Amino acid sequence: MRAGIGVDVAPKGMEEIREIGVGMLGYAFMGKAHANGYRKLGYMAWPPPLQPRLVSIAGRDEAAVGEAARRYGFERSVSDWKELVADPEVELFDNSGPNGLHAEPTLAAAQAGKHVICEKPLARDANESYEIWRGVEGAGVVHMCAFNYRFVPAVRLARQMLEAGDLGDIHHFRGRYLQDWGATTDEVWRFDKAAAGSGALGDLGAHVVDLARYLVGEITQVAAVVKTFQPGRTVDDAFEAAVAFEGGAVGTIEASRFASGRKNAFAWEINGSKGSIAFDLERPNELQVSEGGEGFRTVLVTQPDHPFMGWWWPPGHVIGWEHTFVHELEHLLGAIAGRNEIAPHGATFEDGYRAAEICDAIVLSSESGRRETVSFRGPTE
Amino acid sequence: MRAGIGVDVAPKGMEEIREIGVGMLGYAFMGKAHANGYRKLGYMAWPPPLQPRLVSIAGRDEAAVGEAARRYGFERSVSDWKELVADPEVELFDNSGPNGLHAEPTLAAAQAGKHVICEKPLARDANESYEIWRGVEGAGVVHMCAFNYRFVPAVRLARQMLEAGDLGDIHHFRGRYLQDWGATTDEVWRFDKAAAGSGALGDLGAHVVDLARYLVGEITQVAAVVKTFQPGRTVDDAFEAAVAFEGGAVGTIEASRFASGRKNAFAWEINGSKGSIAFDLERPNELQVSEGGEGFRTVLVTQPDHPFMGWWWPPGHVIGWEHTFVHELEHLLGAIAGRNEIAPHGATFEDGYRAAEICDAIVLSSESGRRETVSFRGPTE
Amino acid sequence: MRAGIGVDVAPKGMEEIREIGVGMLGYAFMGKAHANGYRKLGYMAWPPPLQPRLVSIAGRDEAAVGEAARRYGFERSVSDWKELVADPEVELFDNSGPNGLHAEPTLAAAQAGKHVICEKPLARDANESYEIWRGVEGAGVVHMCAFNYRFVPAVRLARQMLEAGDLGDIHHFRGRYLQDWGATTDEVWRFDKAAAGSGALGDLGAHVVDLARYLVGEITQVAAVVKTFQPGRTVDDAFEAAVAFEGGAVGTIEASRFASGRKNAFAWEINGSKGSIAFDLERPNELQVSEGGEGFRTVLVTQPDHPFMGWWWPPGHVIGWEHTFVHELEHLLGAIAGRNEIAPHGATFEDGYRAAEICDAIVLSSESGRRETVSFRGPTE
Amino acid sequence: MRAGIGVDVAPKGMEEIREIGVGMLGYAFMGKAHANGYRKLGYMAWPPPLQPRLVSIAGRDEAAVGEAARRYGFERSVSDWKELVADPEVELFDNSGPNGLHAEPTLAAAQAGKHVICEKPLARDANESYEIWRGVEGAGVVHMCAFNYRFVPAVRLARQMLEAGDLGDIHHFRGRYLQDWGATTDEVWRFDKAAAGSGALGDLGAHVVDLARYLVGEITQVAAVVKTFQPGRTVDDAFEAAVAFEGGAVGTIEASRFASGRKNAFAWEINGSKGSIAFDLERPNELQVSEGGEGFRTVLVTQPDHPFMGWWWPPGHVIGWEHTFVHELEHLLGAIAGRNEIAPHGATFEDGYRAAEICDAIVLSSESGRRETVSFRGPTE
Repeated sequence: MRAGIGVDVAPKGMEEIREIGVGMLGYAFMGKAHANGYRKLGYMAWPPPLQPRLVSIAGRDEAAVGEAARRYGFERSVSDWKELVADPEVELFDNSGPNGLHAEPTLAAAQAGKHVICEKPLARDANESYEIWRGVEGAGVVHMCAFNYRFVPAVRLARQMLEAGDLGDIHHFRGRYLQDWGATTDEVWRFDKAAAGSGALGDLGAHVVDLARYLVGEITQVAAVVKTFQPGRTVDDAFEAAVAFEGGAVGTIEASRFASGRKNAFAWEINGSKGSIAFDLERPNELQVSEGGEGFRTVLVTQPDHPFMGWWWPPGHVIGWEHTFVHELEHLLGAIAGRNEIAPHGATFEDGYRAAEICDAIVLSSESGRRETVSFRGPTE
Repeated sequence: MRAGIGVDVAPKGMEEIREIGVGMLGYAFMGKAHANGYRKLGYMAWPPPLQPRLVSIAGRDEAAVGEAARRYGFERSVSDWKELVADPEVELFDNSGPNGLHAEPTLAAAQAGKHVICEKPLARDANESYEIWRGVEGAGVVHMCAFNYRFVPAVRLARQMLEAGDLGDIHHFRGRYLQDWGATTDEVWRFDKAAAGSGALGDLGAHVVDLARYLVGEITQVAAVVKTFQPGRTVDDAFEAAVAFEGGAVGTIEASRFASGRKNAFAWEINGSKGSIAFDLERPNELQVSEGGEGFRTVLVTQPDHPFMGWWWPPGHVIGWEHTFVHELEHLLGAIAGRNEIAPHGATFEDGYRAAEICDAIVLSSESGRRETVSFRGPTE
Repeated sequence: MRAGIGVDVAPKGMEEIREIGVGMLGYAFMGKAHANGYRKLGYMAWPPPLQPRLVSIAGRDEAAVGEAARRYGFERSVSDWKELVADPEVELFDNSGPNGLHAEPTLAAAQAGKHVICEKPLARDANESYEIWRGVEGAGVVHMCAFNYRFVPAVRLARQMLEAGDLGDIHHFRGRYLQDWGATTDEVWRFDKAAAGSGALGDLGAHVVDLARYLVGEITQVAAVVKTFQPGRTVDDAFEAAVAFEGGAVGTIEASRFASGRKNAFAWEINGSKGSIAFDLERPNELQVSEGGEGFRTVLVTQPDHPFMGWWWPPGHVIGWEHTFVHELEHLLGAIAGRNEIAPHGATFEDGYRAAEICDAIVLSSESGRRETVSFRGPTE
Repeated sequence: MRAGIGVDVAPKGMEEIREIGVGMLGYAFMGKAHANGYRKLGYMAWPPPLQPRLVSIAGRDEAAVGEAARRYGFERSVSDWKELVADPEVELFDNSGPNGLHAEPTLAAAQAGKHVICEKPLARDANESYEIWRGVEGAGVVHMCAFNYRFVPAVRLARQMLEAGDLGDIHHFRGRYLQDWGATTDEVWRFDKAAAGSGALGDLGAHVVDLARYLVGEITQVAAVVKTFQPGRTVDDAFEAAVAFEGGAVGTIEASRFASGRKNAFAWEINGSKGSIAFDLERPNELQVSEGGEGFRTVLVTQPDHPFMGWWWPPGHVIGWEHTFVHELEHLLGAIAGRNEIAPHGATFEDGYRAAEICDAIVLSSESGRRETVSFRGPTE
């Protein structure tokens, strides 16, 4: 039968699917994305490793969080995240709040024995990230940093190609994450250094750093310029960096909120001795692949044998941005259920910490005028 | 605040959202798409006009339909669609079954006073489609033919531009829907004339015809060649047609399951005296727009003021193919709730019938060797 | 050494390159393109089969044609084309004049023993084209109809792939040639039926027909709609046709001067059982190639082993529209020198005539309301 | 009349066009490109400011240079460039030789009173470049460094938009020039440090630096990593740099000969407060333009009012890579004829020197591990 047209509905067996209670902090952009992820994975990634039960959601505005609970199907809402930590029915703590609210609640939840997922960047700087990682690691729970772009099918396909050696020795990575809304004068927590830690760097740049590490390997050196265009703003608006990788590749890493006309242009390219691949998040269902010959092939990553696509639709029926969260949270539940590890395909808190070290080195390089060598601490330093 | 970044979660008021009981026939490709649509609209198109309650799902294979019910969250499953018709808790009958199962169950459901949505093509030919339309119209229920591509944001945006006169007088429509799986030797009901009525024509061509009508207006003449490439196959594999529209435009309409490398390439272009627009379903978040000047602009249709996009994510965060069903079913529930009419943005059963008349004319033209003039019957002929 | 970087300048031997005297009728758009072609081939297609000597150019406006001679390097200019025919130094007669001036001068030149190249369409209709072909064939001279798009490297590469069977059995050809300047009210001979014979059909459609024939094979049936949008205009502005090919393929052929935003969009696609190729003249250095798998590869047709590209620049250094004339005229001189035949890669006058028959059948089908079967006359009927 | 269709052939007046004698050093890749440029500008950029007369060509291989003379139409060939310098009929000295042969012949020619054009990079490093500039400036002749990409119509159009303020304040420039032939083991002078000075940096990177300067302004700081991948090679294969501009913009500059699948991908993007533009040399006829709204418009830079395009063909009829030399040499002849200055649209030897300073700073930064501030010497230091 045509791959995908006859969507598989054969019974997978009537075994019980175990539930897991989820408590979520935050109900705005990321909260919506995560809530949607939990709801969809339960029937689309069928059968799910665990069936999410949306137990409780926390937020400071009582009316708003109550409405969010009603909307997304949480059984209850609370206005203090400590109630999530104290709630015995919450087995998984999902921190979808702003960066400044990552450390304390996440650590408390882990210490209360709950598995944790935390939005990226893991914290406002490397030190805070390190403390979270060390604390959570010590608590012995499953931990995941929500670098969701690892779960784009085209990105996972790229990783598979790289692991298989299809590209040969890697010479270059160039990644840039461009958006265009930085000139707004509205008050957004993302512009507040106390809440966000950094600007485009932690918000967008951390994604570039994480995928660079996931796809090419560890970054060892950065030579960077960090820039704030908007007068009076306390966080960066953009940065530019030349980087070197452990394996010998060199490249550039950039992010900006001042790239007019670029809405969500997280584009990267990898050049190897045998071929190249390129990607743009504005066309997330496509991977550009050169096998070293006469041009790039636009692979529409919607075949049933492409990563994650067996869960979805027939060939050519594309998925959207939000699906990355379905894939990511399914991976998390698989780890909690003992089916898989978070690493290497999911980002652990160590990955979150390492991305933060690299981001800090970018800031330092811009200030020092030197090319900075990145060094990482171990879990017990 | 940046449009979309601060996703709106303010309480919409705590008014009760009324439920509507849904009974569905079919649990394969279309059943999965519709079930997902009902589940998502309840929290994404917030607050929904009605909250879908998945009451019952029907299918011949008892184990499989039972598993489908468990997966998608239907309260019960049945192996005879007549039980759906007899079920007083089913207020909306959703026919996601194969074409040969459209007429009898849909008519029965309507006559039992249930609102109906039926997958496209409405039936296996124009006569059968006409009978369904006439019967359902007589029953006085809300009816919708599931031409879901009217609910692609870029398509709705195109319609808005056309209604506003942005393109001036329309000269051309050229639409083609290309897939590449026609050479399979697997047994699929879509190749069985008794079950499907036609091949690429009803499956893909009907979509082209419907969007041509939705965007440009009524088709009045067709000069066509219909072709079966696969030996022994009883349905068409492709057709090619030159067409004329009521308003004076001329163009081509095509569909094929033998277009190697084209996965789901429903591409159309409209040329007017002031501008042009073009679309490709393999990149559904984009609309190509020429304002008559020096080139086409790639509009990423993800801004909060773009059709439907206020429900989703910030700019540049794309949606997928499945979202068309969320939009479509929300529109249906809005009509049932009395908030809007099905027409003109949704396809009624009359639209389903008219598309079938045009498809029949394409077949007739190929057989007769003549350019055929299309004529439509009224509801009481 | 890197292919192409070390451009070959080794002496090809100091043998004498024989000259050929060229007489040209017309000095406007096509005259400029041909003159440039003759001048460039002499040193770029090195060594040329014959070295063009620009002997004489004819045009009605004595001052203008004198200036053209000075500009392009013709030794003399004349205001009556009969002087070209009578000129013993003219061995090759190049008819770059308007369509209505194709028949008489071309026939006269051939009868005077001169080789002939004539711009497309060969004449204003099939009968006139037939007369030219028959007359020239009888005269025994080399004849070529200037369908220059056969000489785009990407088109020749497509032909090579088709000949090699890379695409398997051919199912579809869809070709459209779109421009946007039809709404002008300026007086142009291309809008004058007496001078042009037809509008978009002969100007643009003939190119589509010729490439369809060159790439896929003979067209046997056409079902068409021909349209004039501009009030009072005596030639067509657009046509739409469904077509069938001798080998079993079906497709569409279209042309329009009313396609807003399309400047020179001669785009075609061929789908076969093993793969597909697609082309757009607005990006003439690219060929889209699908080998039946997961997407189209953008082949940049600039490698030294690509057709014609050994004459030009290193990989990635693109050529332009005008280069088609260099290739075409080199091919013509090769035929005159006895190195190659005009057919199959060049279009003979028979090809020019056959394209005209198909264009006539398109007009007839639009008028008759029937799908017309095309039939061709032999050289002695 | 349709812009461009009626190519202008009206007499420009029969005034005499003065000739200029050209002597050229080099007959390989660049020699071919320049020779073609001189031959074409004489009739395409009509009437030319001066009519080039190809007097003499110099090269070490007597047979090869003789053949080149015959091919391109030089009146004579010589095997010692000093004969060009001594030749009174040579008024313009064109240095198309390898980098190591730039300084001495160019200086000698200028001191002999000949106008000079020299291929880029101007010399093998900043010091050598400075000496050439200073010497030639002192000789009082017209001098041009052949940064031909300033003469791509899309690049000139970009400059016009920038000068008009269409993009507002400039925030970013990111430019990369990628090719894929670096892994060859053939002996090419471009890999020989003595002949070339540097590798990808001077060959490709200099182009990026020059266009960055031409479009955005002076580069003030570079933080770079320079890399050689091929064992034993004495020149660089790639570099990566973060850069800062005088006007406040920041960005990245890169070049590599190890980018598999990229043939001639000189791509750059500029983001400003009001809009963005992007370009790729593999599609040189296109400029991507965002006016700050919802996406990029693909401007096909072939309209008659686009820079340089009035000389060529109707809209949509694209030009090629070689045309940049026609435009560049016409500009040079215009300067010699007193019609225009070389700057700002052409690169002077000062521009050549400044590009070399920036390239040297890139190397220094890689070695020092510091972000280097670029400083430039004046003509008399």
